[in-house]
Amino acid sequence: MAVVANLDPKRSNAGSDALEALIALVADDLNAVNEQILSRMHSSVELIPQLGGYIVAGGGKRLRPVLTLAAAQLCGYQGTRQTALAACVEFLHTATLLHDDVVDESDLRRGQASANAVFGNKASVLVGDFLFARAFQIMVEDGSLDVLRILCTASAVIAEGEVLQLTTTNDTDTTEEAYLEVIKAKTAELFAAACELGGIVADRPAVEQAALRSYGMNLGIAFQLVDDVLDYSAVQARLGKTIGDDFREGKINLPVVLAFRRGDEEERQFWRRTMEDLDQRDGDLEHAIALMTRHNALHDSVERARHYGAVARDALEMFPNSRIKHALLDVIDFVVSRDF
Amino acid sequence: MAVVANLDPKRSNAGSDALEALIALVADDLNAVNEQILSRMHSSVELIPQLGGYIVAGGGKRLRPVLTLAAAQLCGYQGTRQTALAACVEFLHTATLLHDDVVDESDLRRGQASANAVFGNKASVLVGDFLFARAFQIMVEDGSLDVLRILCTASAVIAEGEVLQLTTTNDTDTTEEAYLEVIKAKTAELFAAACELGGIVADRPAVEQAALRSYGMNLGIAFQLVDDVLDYSAVQARLGKTIGDDFREGKINLPVVLAFRRGDEEERQFWRRTMEDLDQRDGDLEHAIALMTRHNALHDSVERARHYGAVARDALEMFPNSRIKHALLDVIDFVVSRDF
Repeated sequence: MAVVANLDPKRSNAGSDALEALIALVADDLNAVNEQILSRMHSSVELIPQLGGYIVAGGGKRLRPVLTLAAAQLCGYQGTRQTALAACVEFLHTATLLHDDVVDESDLRRGQASANAVFGNKASVLVGDFLFARAFQIMVEDGSLDVLRILCTASAVIAEGEVLQLTTTNDTDTTEEAYLEVIKAKTAELFAAACELGGIVADRPAVEQAALRSYGMNLGIAFQLVDDVLDYSAVQARLGKTIGDDFREGKINLPVVLAFRRGDEEERQFWRRTMEDLDQRDGDLEHAIALMTRHNALHDSVERARHYGAVARDALEMFPNSRIKHALLDVIDFVVSRDF
Repeated sequence: MAVVANLDPKRSNAGSDALEALIALVADDLNAVNEQILSRMHSSVELIPQLGGYIVAGGGKRLRPVLTLAAAQLCGYQGTRQTALAACVEFLHTATLLHDDVVDESDLRRGQASANAVFGNKASVLVGDFLFARAFQIMVEDGSLDVLRILCTASAVIAEGEVLQLTTTNDTDTTEEAYLEVIKAKTAELFAAACELGGIVADRPAVEQAALRSYGMNLGIAFQLVDDVLDYSAVQARLGKTIGDDFREGKINLPVVLAFRRGDEEERQFWRRTMEDLDQRDGDLEHAIALMTRHNALHDSVERARHYGAVARDALEMFPNSRIKHALLDVIDFVVSRDF
């Protein structure tokens, strides 16, 4: 069967529309966030706004800050604190990307040359540090210890997740549990924090803050699961996207975990050679995808993502119906079904 | 004349005794700090305490946290908040070292193999990030927005200083002012913050907090000036220490700035070849030291350090006489005269 059954263009377009709809609902706030991002990246050291601007302006969908804005709106918040905090969330994300690109020695990010390829590893590490610190300065100006606690904890957890990922890389013994622990920490924790902040600024009851956190956490897990599937996606390849980055680095993501477990000894030898020894040859990536397809590893990874998407959906149940609630629900489909 | 006139062993031993005397006065608190450093570095991801422990336990004199403890004692503070905050200061310093070692590709730190040489660049960047985040978590537990503001600002300024240093590296046009801006940001800012925290926890008047900050800032500038001189020190070489690290990397420190400015065109060609083009040959380091000696560049750099030491001394004038005050004054001599 086609591994891309869950990822066909029509569904994904619907998903992408869902994200556009969510963004439209927070458009004014998002403009304010973008202004804050530019103004707070200012430094007399020119390389900082230069490099920071390169990666922040480079774009992405601003999914994480959009979640903060949407969560605040879902909570009926009428103030303006959410925009600075959404900018913090994006700064923390950007800092992580900068450090991630350095450590992964990756050459490409969002189809552009990565910041470290253009500016060098040194600058990427140090500008990442600056963005971390600047994010915390913005939080201190906001003045809420709850906000600081949430984002400090998230930052520590993210770093732990990245270190944990290091220790699972090239290790085909990695379990599904260990993989989940990594993606919860390195990706889902910031989604969770981004959403929780909306409930914090709106001063909603703890149960609602926890629900927002749960929505973000489960959405984030689904997001990373699908992201890891896309790196082996035939649709992506047909769209001209680079695939196989994780494979070349020996990152043990769920599709590999499942294919390895379900494979015979000869297949496991293949995985050990390519992922542990990084002894890779022409045709290995295609063979890896064929093995994943044979064992439904990509399909089942997306099924796991659907499970977390369903949990995210239920987490929002307690909030009254509204356009923003429906947009947040629809974005789950975007995350699970995207193939761009 | 001997470039090391200010750095002879006898004076330095006196200085080192001064540091020991200061440490003795805060010994109980420092034990508590060391316990906090170990316990707060805990993570279920084993590589984190492993690598963090390697560099934190690796030692150094804990000069920065000692300054926090001493400043609190100078202010007559009777509580216990200073130990956790001193641990934060050491975490921030350690995180900076980890990132600095990565970006400098240096192989040695305090005579041991640097953490990145042992654990790899990836782990050093990510464990550094973890220590940053953990430091902020500890501050949030302390609960003072003033503390958070001071250390967030310090972190942003340090990162800016490190980036600025990148842009001056290999640039023989670097001015003394630009060099000073770099060392104020990358080194002295944390000394200033470490001292200021003592006044914050003791809730002393703003003028005393500012005086402590000034003491730390000027002590930190003197410290870095001398540190940069030591990298060209014949005494260091005779003691078997590695010298010339900055030279090999093309870092434009004050001795280079002065020797370049004071040199003739042939000498400037030498500096451009070695520091800008990094085209270095056998005997170049020795020639660099000879040129610095000819132009009194090392001696005058230490004289500049003495100037900042004198400002630091006057900053403490407003505090009543006490053993801790005298120890803080004596430590200025240690910083200016050390040659270890």
